[in-house]
Amino acid sequence: MRMVDLIIKKKHKGELTKEEIDYIVTNFVSGEIPDYQMSAFLMAVCFQGMTKKETYLFTEAFAHSGDMVDLSAIKGIKVDKHSTGGVGDKTTLIIAPIVASCGVKVAKMSGRGLGHTGGTIDKLEAIPGFKTAIDRDEFFKIVNDIGVSVIGQSGNLTPADKKCYALRDVTGTVDSIPLIAISIMSKKLAAGSDCILLDVKTGSGAFMKTVDDSIELAQEMVDIGTSCGRKMAALITDMDIPLGNNIGNALEVIEAVETLKGHGPEDLTDVCIELAANMLYMAELGTIEECRKLAKDKIHSGEAVAVLARMADAQGGDGSYILDPSKFTIASIKVEVKAPKSGYISHMDAEGVGIASTMLGAGRETKDSIIDYGAGIKLIKKTHDKVNEGDVIAEFYTSKEELTEPAKKRFLESVTISDADSKVEPLIYARVTADKVERR
Amino acid sequence: MRMVDLIIKKKHKGELTKEEIDYIVTNFVSGEIPDYQMSAFLMAVCFQGMTKKETYLFTEAFAHSGDMVDLSAIKGIKVDKHSTGGVGDKTTLIIAPIVASCGVKVAKMSGRGLGHTGGTIDKLEAIPGFKTAIDRDEFFKIVNDIGVSVIGQSGNLTPADKKCYALRDVTGTVDSIPLIAISIMSKKLAAGSDCILLDVKTGSGAFMKTVDDSIELAQEMVDIGTSCGRKMAALITDMDIPLGNNIGNALEVIEAVETLKGHGPEDLTDVCIELAANMLYMAELGTIEECRKLAKDKIHSGEAVAVLARMADAQGGDGSYILDPSKFTIASIKVEVKAPKSGYISHMDAEGVGIASTMLGAGRETKDSIIDYGAGIKLIKKTHDKVNEGDVIAEFYTSKEELTEPAKKRFLESVTISDADSKVEPLIYARVTADKVERR
Repeated sequence: MRMVDLIIKKKHKGELTKEEIDYIVTNFVSGEIPDYQMSAFLMAVCFQGMTKKETYLFTEAFAHSGDMVDLSAIKGIKVDKHSTGGVGDKTTLIIAPIVASCGVKVAKMSGRGLGHTGGTIDKLEAIPGFKTAIDRDEFFKIVNDIGVSVIGQSGNLTPADKKCYALRDVTGTVDSIPLIAISIMSKKLAAGSDCILLDVKTGSGAFMKTVDDSIELAQEMVDIGTSCGRKMAALITDMDIPLGNNIGNALEVIEAVETLKGHGPEDLTDVCIELAANMLYMAELGTIEECRKLAKDKIHSGEAVAVLARMADAQGGDGSYILDPSKFTIASIKVEVKAPKSGYISHMDAEGVGIASTMLGAGRETKDSIIDYGAGIKLIKKTHDKVNEGDVIAEFYTSKEELTEPAKKRFLESVTISDADSKVEPLIYARVTADKVERR
Repeated sequence: MRMVDLIIKKKHKGELTKEEIDYIVTNFVSGEIPDYQMSAFLMAVCFQGMTKKETYLFTEAFAHSGDMVDLSAIKGIKVDKHSTGGVGDKTTLIIAPIVASCGVKVAKMSGRGLGHTGGTIDKLEAIPGFKTAIDRDEFFKIVNDIGVSVIGQSGNLTPADKKCYALRDVTGTVDSIPLIAISIMSKKLAAGSDCILLDVKTGSGAFMKTVDDSIELAQEMVDIGTSCGRKMAALITDMDIPLGNNIGNALEVIEAVETLKGHGPEDLTDVCIELAANMLYMAELGTIEECRKLAKDKIHSGEAVAVLARMADAQGGDGSYILDPSKFTIASIKVEVKAPKSGYISHMDAEGVGIASTMLGAGRETKDSIIDYGAGIKLIKKTHDKVNEGDVIAEFYTSKEELTEPAKKRFLESVTISDADSKVEPLIYARVTADKVERR
């Protein structure tokens, strides 16, 4: 078998066999297939796509390229959640404790942020002392004791995906639905949970800019997981506007805690209730309506926030910060950003806001950037709000004065103020399962 | 400027600017742009193509990536010819002496064979003592004295093309019309002639399998050359059937000499007269009909074959072999290949015949293979001939007995014998110039 022949086959829209796919993945990981052949292949996939069968076979081969985590040491049903990434997306910090407080186990491996999107691991590390690199046995013990633990990816998980992702990033081959599906689902399959809920973001701050593309990606992933014997569902949620009001690591933990205490912003609260309810529904805790009520109850009873505090303690962090988030240190320089004119905020580009936050020090521009956990943005006004010229629309927090001006410029480029308001879009567009797509 | 952004631009069918193209070529040659980015870019070009302007700019940048040969030391009009490559294509050995004997200068740099197609340099090296690596001043002197010299590519000619071609070969990105046009035309521009005649082969033994694709490639190349101030024309000629009867280096020189003496096979003679006439026409030696007559006259007068003998002498070879080609050593093992059944040879796949010849030792399977100059195939029957079972259809020549069986198998797979003959196709399909396409 020669890689050049397989590249040509895909270029002509041929369907690769299991043997051919295994050959590609094995030899790419071992280095026998050089990057320049793999990148040509990936570009051909961007144009010609993959059949359902090919996508499934690639995902299996990627998942099995490294360790497959065995969660059998954890008692009960394990439900995982994956978000395709967005701006101000702190949902894991909220829904994992809610679900765990209902007795469903969440053994979650999360990623770090890159570019305009944040990562759960970075957010958790804003809690003083919090460790995200802990060994497998301790991880299992915490999940068994508290119901939830969130750690960074450890061990040799999906090396094929790591290598492939790095290559896609520099070769313009990121935005392919099968390649995104393979990347996400191989990690989820290797991570070992029984049920997987996908939160596929759609809109200006997401990979997928349209609802139709998001549904297609969701279906692709749900089908892969189902073929591999996992219980799957996906929600298509809005990422045209940042989720909640706070962007930045400590700022997002604070907002997550407020939401867990019942005082969060409406959009964030609604999305979290829906995601948590769907996870509980997958774990068969009742009808979807009963699961929504269960999730709300765990917020109002204080049980959910207590789980987050206990998880923080168990992972070496200071749980008192969760119970009293005013203890968090926010970056010392505060700058108000004012509306340059009067009108309605008809659009606030989530990606632009995410980039502005990164420019303030809250994110990573490259893999090796150092994060300022206290930096970020508090949105005072959001899309559909009416503003007068000079009204404060956002507060910037940073440790370096010189970062504020360029960030402000980038932020204001992302905000459109018009005479008339824009159409209000739903927070949740659709729910996708193995057998149907329910549009809202 | 970042290569990844330029890859994405091309992926979305954007038109690259001169600055962007120069950036790609300069940094690819210097190694700043890694192969894995270039191969993704090349694959995107295979799908999205290039505009005329991009193709022209890439060709200019490739040509200027190394030395530009200055032919001003050669007096008179310099006409170059380039064939896109085929099986049994010994036309350069015939038309270059014809044209030179008419007083038009041919200062030609040629390539070696690879895969199923032969190379003029290999054929010339079948003449004992013939040197194809000679320095620039001697090359100019021979052209001034005799009218023609054919040497291998020397110096640092189009390094961008060398590097790009090697990468295309292993990444499935060979069959793109703009990429082929850039590769050929950058070398031709760097080689310095005033007029360039392109012989674009079409059919089973050529890169371009259809006449329409061949015309498109020809137009692309004619347009590039015209934009760069060269006088351009292209003929679309048949390569569905091997050209002439002999395939293999010494065998082809023998057939070329026979043709120069007026005893060549009809198809080869006709194509050579037409190519030579077009070169003479570009040099303004008369109407196309007058130029045809001139070419035929130089064959019949013996002047053309004398030029080839003198060129052989001037380049260190033994010109007496040209005057008496029976002196050539042909490989000692001769095997007759017989028709397995009776009927018409309705098709003889040129590529398959070329591969069989390579298997006998006449060609290179890899860049480093050693050639057996005396090996090859003499076709006794060709497409449209009627044969009886057991008739000899070809003679194989090789130095290694064990090579004959696999070559015979491959050869016979390429020959279709049917009850009815197939349609006779023309030898020359079209002539393409800057302002028109004349189909025959």
